[in-house]
Amino acid sequence: MTVETGSGPTPPRLVTLSVEELHASLTDPALESMNLLNEIAARFPDAVSFAAGRPYEGFYDIEDVHRYLRTFWSYLVEERGHDAERATRLLFQYGRTKGVIHELIAGQLAVDEGITTDPEDIVVTVGAQEAMFLTLRALRSDDRDRLLSVSPMYVGVTGAARLVDLPVVGVTAGADGVDLADLAAKAERVRAAGHRPRALYLVPDFSNPTGISLPLGTRRRLLDLADRLDLLILEDNPYGIFAHGERRMPTLKSLDHRDRVVYLGSFAKTSLPGARVGFVVAGQRVTDAAGADRGSFADQLSKIKSMVTVNTSPLAQAVVAGQLLANKGSLVAASTAEQLVYRHNMRQLLDGLARRFPDPHAAGVSWNNPSGGFFVTLTVPFPADDLALADSARRYGVLWIPMHHFYEAPGGLHQIRLSCSCLNPADIDEGLDRLAAFVTGRGRKGEPG
Amino acid sequence: MTVETGSGPTPPRLVTLSVEELHASLTDPALESMNLLNEIAARFPDAVSFAAGRPYEGFYDIEDVHRYLRTFWSYLVEERGHDAERATRLLFQYGRTKGVIHELIAGQLAVDEGITTDPEDIVVTVGAQEAMFLTLRALRSDDRDRLLSVSPMYVGVTGAARLVDLPVVGVTAGADGVDLADLAAKAERVRAAGHRPRALYLVPDFSNPTGISLPLGTRRRLLDLADRLDLLILEDNPYGIFAHGERRMPTLKSLDHRDRVVYLGSFAKTSLPGARVGFVVAGQRVTDAAGADRGSFADQLSKIKSMVTVNTSPLAQAVVAGQLLANKGSLVAASTAEQLVYRHNMRQLLDGLARRFPDPHAAGVSWNNPSGGFFVTLTVPFPADDLALADSARRYGVLWIPMHHFYEAPGGLHQIRLSCSCLNPADIDEGLDRLAAFVTGRGRKGEPG
Repeated sequence: MTVETGSGPTPPRLVTLSVEELHASLTDPALESMNLLNEIAARFPDAVSFAAGRPYEGFYDIEDVHRYLRTFWSYLVEERGHDAERATRLLFQYGRTKGVIHELIAGQLAVDEGITTDPEDIVVTVGAQEAMFLTLRALRSDDRDRLLSVSPMYVGVTGAARLVDLPVVGVTAGADGVDLADLAAKAERVRAAGHRPRALYLVPDFSNPTGISLPLGTRRRLLDLADRLDLLILEDNPYGIFAHGERRMPTLKSLDHRDRVVYLGSFAKTSLPGARVGFVVAGQRVTDAAGADRGSFADQLSKIKSMVTVNTSPLAQAVVAGQLLANKGSLVAASTAEQLVYRHNMRQLLDGLARRFPDPHAAGVSWNNPSGGFFVTLTVPFPADDLALADSARRYGVLWIPMHHFYEAPGGLHQIRLSCSCLNPADIDEGLDRLAAFVTGRGRKGEPG
Repeated sequence: MTVETGSGPTPPRLVTLSVEELHASLTDPALESMNLLNEIAARFPDAVSFAAGRPYEGFYDIEDVHRYLRTFWSYLVEERGHDAERATRLLFQYGRTKGVIHELIAGQLAVDEGITTDPEDIVVTVGAQEAMFLTLRALRSDDRDRLLSVSPMYVGVTGAARLVDLPVVGVTAGADGVDLADLAAKAERVRAAGHRPRALYLVPDFSNPTGISLPLGTRRRLLDLADRLDLLILEDNPYGIFAHGERRMPTLKSLDHRDRVVYLGSFAKTSLPGARVGFVVAGQRVTDAAGADRGSFADQLSKIKSMVTVNTSPLAQAVVAGQLLANKGSLVAASTAEQLVYRHNMRQLLDGLARRFPDPHAAGVSWNNPSGGFFVTLTVPFPADDLALADSARRYGVLWIPMHHFYEAPGGLHQIRLSCSCLNPADIDEGLDRLAAFVTGRGRKGEPG
C-alpha cells in the first residue's frame, strides 16, 4: 500500500493498493479469462453469440415469482402447519444455515434422479458455485492437497480452487468423459510427489465445456476406481435433466453406495439463475483422530458457509420451492418447455453444422453429437485462440469460446465451445452461416492465428 | 480419508473423512462457539433470550415482498426505460457480478450518511458477511499478513479471517471504542515481527458486541493514525442508523478523504435479513508493480465474488431496492418504526437494570449506556463463562452471551452481552427479573464459575 499525492487544489493523498500484495488469484489467468471474453462480447453487441451458456429466457415471467412465493407460503401454512408469524419469520429472518427447502430438494432428487438422501445431508447454497467453493475450502487443508479435475473443465471450479490455493491437476476427458487410465496415473503421480489428491471434479452429463457424457459402464468403473484410489468424487450436474428423450443416464450419486460422491446441484438452469439457489449433498461422516463422530461433511460445509454468506436467502429459496411445489416436486416436470427448446436448438445446431460442412474431413473440422445439454465441441484446422475469436467477432459477427480457456495446461487450441441454449432458431441459422464463413475462410488461408 | 466396513447384510464400505485432514478452521473455536451457544439456546426454548441479536420481527409482512418487487419493476420500466423483456432478464438471469442496485445504494449512502461514492465502487454482496469475506480474501496474500481488529469483536470477522488463514490481532476497545495508543503499539509490534498489518476492522457505531460508539474526536484521530500507520480501515456499520434522536455520528467513510476506508453495509437490520443483501464500498485504486492501473479494489472483490457466489440474487436485491424506492431512497425513512422499537427496548433495558441494581457498586455490577443499537455490556462480579450461562438458562430461564466468545485472546470473562432487539416489553421485564436473580444469587455465592 502506498500513499500518492493528488493534483487537486488541496492535494488529497489517496491510498492505492498494490495488486502484487493482494491474493495471487487476482492476477491468475483463471480469474481473468472470463473478463476477457466478456470484454470481447461487449465490444461486438451485434454479433451472434454461441459463447453465452445462459439458460433460455423465453418463459420467464415476473408474475411467476409472485405465484411461486404464494405457493410456498400456502405450503408452509397448509401443509407444514406454520401460523403466519412463523411462516413470515422463516422467510424474513436469519435462518438455518443449511437452508429451509432441504426436504423439498431431497424429494426432488428422489423423484427425478433416484437419489435417496437424508435432508440433513443437504446444504442449500448461493448457486452451485458456492457449493463448490465450500467443498474445496473444506478439503484444502495444507500445501500437499491437490484437486483432480477432468480437463477441459468449467472455469468456476478452477477459480474456486485458486481462491483456496488448491492446485488443480487435469485428467484427460477422452471420448468417454474421463480417461480412467489417466485418472489412475495422475492420482499416483500426485501421491508419488508427496501430495494428496483430495477429489476428482467432473460434470458427468453434457459437460461444460465439451458436451460429453459418461457412458454407463464408465460411470461404474469410475466409482470402482475411486474406491481403489481412495478419492472423493465431486459430481456437478447442472445439465443432466436436459437429456433428449425419456431415458436419462443415472447420476454417479445414484450409483454410489459408499458415500464416494459429493453431489453439486443447481437450480439456475432448471428454475432461474436470478434466485441464486443451488445445493450440495454431502452425507459423508466425519470423524476425529480419536474416532469420535464429528457430524456429516454437510455439517462442516455449513460451518464454513456461516462465515461466507450466513445462509442462502430464504426468499430466493421460496421462489425455487414454489416452482417445485407447483410441479409435484419434480424439476423434470417443471422444465418440459425448456427441454423442448434445448433439444430443438441442439438439433438445429448439429444439423446446421452437417449441412454447412458436408465433407467435414475435407474441411478439416469435426464435432461431437451430444444427446442433451447446452454445449458442442467443434474442432477446427487452425488455432482457435483469443486473436481468432476477436477476428471472428469483428469480421464475421459471430462469438464462441476458445476451448483453451478451459484447460489448466496448454491444450484445446484447435477446439471451440459452441452453446445454443439462449438463441432462437433464426439466430442459430444466421450464426452458423457466419461461423462457417469464418472457419472456411481461416482454414483456407491457413492463418497461424 | 478411510474406508470402513459396515454391518449390513451386504457390507457397504462407507467413506469417512478425517476432520484433521479438513481445513483447520473447522476445528477452530471461532467457528464452534456460535454452534455451542445455539445448542444451549435450543435446549432451553422457554428461556427469555438476551442472546439473540436478530432484528425485530413485528413489522414483517409477506405482502410487502410482493409490493417491493412491483415497486422495483415499475422503477425499471418507468424510470429506467426498460421494456418488459429487459426488466425480466435483469431479475431472472445471471447478471452483473457487482450487482444491479448499486445506483440506489449510492443514493441511499448520500441521503442517509453523507457518503459520496461512485456506484461503480460498490459491490452488492450476499449480506455484509460476504463483503467481509471477499475483502479479507483479497487482502490476505501470504503468511506475513495480519488483520487488526478492535477486541472484543464480531464473530463473523474472526470466522471469515480463519477461512483465509489470516491471523487476527486484537486491539483494545477501551471506553471510546478503540484505544489508539494500543492500535499504534500493535501495528508496530506486528511490523517488528516481520508481518504486515493489512487493515483494522471495527464497528464504530453501537458495536457488536459491546454497544460502544467512537466519539467524533476519536474518529478523526483514528483516520489520522491510520494514515500514519498506512492501514486500511474496514468500517462495518449495521447499527449506525439506530441512533436515538436526530443526530447521528458521521461514519468514518464520510470523514475519509484519502480512500482509507473500506465500508461494509448491511440491509439485514434495516430492511430484512431474509434477502441476504449487503454491500461493500471499495473505491481504492489498485496498481501493479509497473504503476499501471488495475481498476478499483471493488473490481478485485468482484473477481473473487464471481468464484464464490457469481452474483447476488437480483430478486433479493429487487426486494431491498423496492423498499428503498418506497421510502424516497432513504433507509432512515424506511425504518422509523423499528427505530422507535429499538429505542424503547434499550431504554427499558437500561432503566430496568438501574431499578434492579440501585447500588451497582455494592452489587459488583456495572453496564454501559449506549445511545442506540442493539447491545449493552454488563459487567458482573463472577466469571460469566459457558458453565455460568448453562446455569443461568437451566435454573433462571434467561439467556445471554458470555463476552469471552468475542475475544481472540483470553478476556472479557466478567462481561456479558445483552441484546434487546427482538424482545417485547413484557419479555424484557421478565428477563431482567430472572437475570437479576441469577446475577445476585451467583454474585452472593461467589461461585468460581
